[in-house]
Amino acid sequence: MSEPELLPEAETEVEYALDRDLVSSLYDALAAQDAPRVAELLEPLHPADIADLFEQIGPAKRQDVLALWQSEDLGEVLSELDEGLREDVIAALEPEVLAEAVRDLESDDVVDLVEDLDAEQQDAILDALEAPDRVAVEQSLQYPETSAGRLMQRELVMAPEHWTVGQTIDHIRADDDLPDQFYHVILVDPRLRPTGYVTLGRLLGSPRQTALADITEDSFRTIPVMQDEAEVAYAFNQYHLISAPVVDEEDRLVGVITIDDAMVVLDEEYNEDILRLAGVGDESVSDTTWEITKQRFPWLGVNLLTAILASLVISLFDDVIAQVVALAILMPIVASMGGNAGTQSLTVAVRAIATKDLTGSNAWRILRREVLASLLNGFVFAIIMGAISFLWFDTPVLALIIAAAMVINLAVAGLAGLLVPLGLEKLGIDPALASGTFVTTVTDVVGFFAFLGLAAWILL
Amino acid sequence: MSEPELLPEAETEVEYALDRDLVSSLYDALAAQDAPRVAELLEPLHPADIADLFEQIGPAKRQDVLALWQSEDLGEVLSELDEGLREDVIAALEPEVLAEAVRDLESDDVVDLVEDLDAEQQDAILDALEAPDRVAVEQSLQYPETSAGRLMQRELVMAPEHWTVGQTIDHIRADDDLPDQFYHVILVDPRLRPTGYVTLGRLLGSPRQTALADITEDSFRTIPVMQDEAEVAYAFNQYHLISAPVVDEEDRLVGVITIDDAMVVLDEEYNEDILRLAGVGDESVSDTTWEITKQRFPWLGVNLLTAILASLVISLFDDVIAQVVALAILMPIVASMGGNAGTQSLTVAVRAIATKDLTGSNAWRILRREVLASLLNGFVFAIIMGAISFLWFDTPVLALIIAAAMVINLAVAGLAGLLVPLGLEKLGIDPALASGTFVTTVTDVVGFFAFLGLAAWILL
Repeated sequence: MSEPELLPEAETEVEYALDRDLVSSLYDALAAQDAPRVAELLEPLHPADIADLFEQIGPAKRQDVLALWQSEDLGEVLSELDEGLREDVIAALEPEVLAEAVRDLESDDVVDLVEDLDAEQQDAILDALEAPDRVAVEQSLQYPETSAGRLMQRELVMAPEHWTVGQTIDHIRADDDLPDQFYHVILVDPRLRPTGYVTLGRLLGSPRQTALADITEDSFRTIPVMQDEAEVAYAFNQYHLISAPVVDEEDRLVGVITIDDAMVVLDEEYNEDILRLAGVGDESVSDTTWEITKQRFPWLGVNLLTAILASLVISLFDDVIAQVVALAILMPIVASMGGNAGTQSLTVAVRAIATKDLTGSNAWRILRREVLASLLNGFVFAIIMGAISFLWFDTPVLALIIAAAMVINLAVAGLAGLLVPLGLEKLGIDPALASGTFVTTVTDVVGFFAFLGLAAWILL
Repeated sequence: MSEPELLPEAETEVEYALDRDLVSSLYDALAAQDAPRVAELLEPLHPADIADLFEQIGPAKRQDVLALWQSEDLGEVLSELDEGLREDVIAALEPEVLAEAVRDLESDDVVDLVEDLDAEQQDAILDALEAPDRVAVEQSLQYPETSAGRLMQRELVMAPEHWTVGQTIDHIRADDDLPDQFYHVILVDPRLRPTGYVTLGRLLGSPRQTALADITEDSFRTIPVMQDEAEVAYAFNQYHLISAPVVDEEDRLVGVITIDDAMVVLDEEYNEDILRLAGVGDESVSDTTWEITKQRFPWLGVNLLTAILASLVISLFDDVIAQVVALAILMPIVASMGGNAGTQSLTVAVRAIATKDLTGSNAWRILRREVLASLLNGFVFAIIMGAISFLWFDTPVLALIIAAAMVINLAVAGLAGLLVPLGLEKLGIDPALASGTFVTTVTDVVGFFAFLGLAAWILL
């Protein structure tokens, strides 16, 4: 039976998205065990697109492809795959196929590939490498995960700072072992400390006798080898770096990071933040049902605890609810508005902390702004909701109670939305991860307490 | 009175964050009207950091800085500023100061600067430019906002595809008007259609007689000039491009986009998605209280409507609540768990749509996975919450009702969390913008209806 389409045909032809016809042709070829046809279909695809395809088709189809398809692109496909899936695919490959695939990769891609594997798989891949590559990979693995040391490539082009353009070009031309990609020549002093860099464009455009020191770029910055990769991505983004030398504790050149590596990190960091803000772990479309069930369970559990806390607050006021059922009808509105206002504030705060726009210099000003804006919106919605309550239940005092509770809860939402992320950051906890739970707990508890408490005080 | 610190001192010394001592020294210098000291403090900062400083200090202090500080960096600071703030700063500058600042910028930075200004400010800046620059800017402005045409730079280096390395290097060296930054030579056919590109590293490392056609890169891709910038950023990220030629409808070369431009777009797109998911517009720390109040109002208004809808559902069951107050105490738990499970699902779906990982080929498989995972978590939390209810209220039937409502609402959350973003995408609405409201409306309504409806049916 063919399934109705969840996405329209036009949608699947969106630029850069995988062609749906290709996927069904592939399924036909797999069913027919037609290896040449599988190769013909996958051949024109970029390894990144083949990796996406692997992630989108189910596990059974993936096994079929791996059984029928041999390609020199396999190594690159592996390094493009989602981490979770990569482990499964590597485990499914014959050792010699894996060895062959990995041998064609650059050393920094191999590092990226092996760092998340278990020790046995890691050894299998390292053994497949030639000695110099293996040493390079093993050296990189000695730096902490998510450090600049892991991100950098060791292959680079440097020149003494007193050289001329001509000397440098002759040197580059004589070098048989140039990096695959390089965009700058790094100038170093006699102790191998980087002092500047020259773009290849400037090198090519300048007369041979020009001193390198006269054509260096203004934007020169070095990256400490132990710096966290998130900071590295920030620096590239903030200062528009194209590549940056990486230095050890004595400021000596040990490698180079290029903007394409930084862009991958920026992408990962953002993705992680978005998922964390929603209480989801590191999930992807290739995860199994069981994996995502486990991933989502903890945050739902935390949410259950906070929801029970809110219910305990409500239970304090069961007398007044029993007398005035309208309170039960209206109370979720106060909590919901507070939760939404809090989410708005906390999201802005989490972003501002991540972009280093929220600092000791402006935190007080931002706090005043958040509370004031929340109060302003609180007053407007208090009037609107007071009027609606009055029309609905025809009880002026109820209208006043919900209006007052609305102002209180929205002001608290603005306050908590800023203070909770700042507090978590101060404690060294990622504000993206836990702010939402804390803030909505505060707005639920305060919302119910203010509304029902005022009602109990006035009505009983 | 000095204010207590909202962020610890250590926090303000985080790498790349603005130094708090610098800010207070700047305030002292401003108070003393000490222009040389202001210049001395700002001089060592990168224009991007000065822009951050402008965003973090209040509007009054910003005026003081602008009055006291003259620098050739002003143009770059302007182009680094948040759009909202940029307009204010430009309006505050004397016309001749503005003209001077803009004249030092690259043409693509000028485009970025003027595109959001009102017509009068735009004309003032265009008039300040020299004729060839003005023409270049005006041509760029003819492409739609957020198109590749706006993003690209016109300055590029190209060569006929039959040239050798030596010819190309001689040509580059003879050119007095090379782009400030370039990393590739683009090969073109006689009709100016790009056919490949060669990195400058490869050019420098190859013998002079090598044909360019023999050393082109594998990853060659062209970008249509009308393509949306979000798609451009996706292509750079997916295919690890460093630069890409931009072509018109006849495939002729019209410009080049480099990875640093694509990284800026990627950053903006992510930021926008995060804020939209939280129901916040394009906000920044430099916005005034009034601006953020207005920005946040519409989504709070939409939320009020959905909250009232949920209250209407509750009001259908006021009889049973009046008899069993425990229902009022427990009902927010069911709604809250559904809301959170729905947010998890929709966030994963919104990300998967953005990364083109959720397509016609796998939508059904993902739907089955979402519903199954929600059901699994639903059953576990049904048992937990059923047990808690039983212990709390000692009423077995109430425990069964909340357990059943939990399973129903979590399953619906999984379903809505995927179908709502897919539906919005199908309708051409950004799923990041509106999914949250729709999904929580569904989980609130279904949560209250299932719980109270079952209770009314069984208990009355």
